[in-house]
Amino acid sequence: METRTDKTHPHGYSADKDALLKRLRRIEGQVRGIARMVEEDTYCIDVLTQVSAINAAMHKVSLNLVEDHIGHCVVGAAEQSQATGDPSIVEDKVKEASAAISRLLR
Amino acid sequence: METRTDKTHPHGYSADKDALLKRLRRIEGQVRGIARMVEEDTYCIDVLTQVSAINAAMHKVSLNLVEDHIGHCVVGAAEQSQATGDPSIVEDKVKEASAAISRLLR
Amino acid sequence: METRTDKTHPHGYSADKDALLKRLRRIEGQVRGIARMVEEDTYCIDVLTQVSAINAAMHKVSLNLVEDHIGHCVVGAAEQSQATGDPSIVEDKVKEASAAISRLLR
Amino acid sequence: METRTDKTHPHGYSADKDALLKRLRRIEGQVRGIARMVEEDTYCIDVLTQVSAINAAMHKVSLNLVEDHIGHCVVGAAEQSQATGDPSIVEDKVKEASAAISRLLR
Repeated sequence: METRTDKTHPHGYSADKDALLKRLRRIEGQVRGIARMVEEDTYCIDVLTQVSAINAAMHKVSLNLVEDHIGHCVVGAAEQSQATGDPSIVEDKVKEASAAISRLLR
Repeated sequence: METRTDKTHPHGYSADKDALLKRLRRIEGQVRGIARMVEEDTYCIDVLTQVSAINAAMHKVSLNLVEDHIGHCVVGAAEQSQATGDPSIVEDKVKEASAAISRLLR
Repeated sequence: METRTDKTHPHGYSADKDALLKRLRRIEGQVRGIARMVEEDTYCIDVLTQVSAINAAMHKVSLNLVEDHIGHCVVGAAEQSQATGDPSIVEDKVKEASAAISRLLR
Repeated sequence: METRTDKTHPHGYSADKDALLKRLRRIEGQVRGIARMVEEDTYCIDVLTQVSAINAAMHKVSLNLVEDHIGHCVVGAAEQSQATGDPSIVEDKVKEASAAISRLLR
């Protein structure tokens, strides 16, 4: 008999995990690059251009996570709500998702 | 005989419609207020403060719409996908939602 | 003898005033358009697309005002600081400008 | 005898350089922390909360750089424009600053 092993792929981003990790490594390098630019007194506008590049990269990371969250956690909760007849399961997930999106929009 | 009345409340924001409309009327007035400030040569920093207030109000409107969309359209699609066994129904809605969120984050 | 009439064009955006006012009128119409969409139960994603369009338009308005502020108020203060030997005049303007930019970035 | 060594501190952020570098090191660590969270399949909402924290920290870095740029490069250019009677020196800097701010606002 097989049980669902939610523990190993709990949040849906596992499929794209490698891509996401690669992206985060690159961002880490970009932040280090900015520190180097500041150390070397690089012209501030050039530093700001790099800051914008990191913001755009972080934006893609957020989007990735939000899409995975909606596509897995919210959708999974919708199915559970339907199976159990308890709407609060999905309602809680929707609230949580929109709170996270609100923090991203600041 | 009962017909599904999806047409009258199709997107879920109908419940909060009055609150949303009130909020939009207020934003409309704020934009008009900024035009007046510009006409009267109000100090630019004070105009910018009003611009930030409108941005924050628009942010709440977006959040409202996003939460309603996830809570109604995405969740509804998840139920349809489960009922029909066709995962593409909800997958399309999730993609659409995250594209809209991406535009909001810019 | 002529005196400078800073009162009538104090903040520099007066030159582009017409363009700025036209832009604000258009945004006002866009906000009204969104209210209409909500009233007519337009599909939420389409409403969100319009919200993003307004955000982009407000972004241009902010940028306009920021550029004018820096180009006129900050630069004017720099000249006054140089003329009077009092650096605090320009320092205050720079602080004020960056506080306004911070509110825009949220 | 003292000479002004503008070359070594060209962009004004040198004074706050240590604080800025410390902030960047912390952000680098936060990005690495997110990679670790993803590796360990941390709940996506918790990862998103960390993403928002990095965005807020990057926001402070940008603001720092923008304030320094306006306070040093733009103000310095305003003084040069006044000394030389050539307004284009400061006009170019203002354009450059507002282009950088536009990229930050996205």
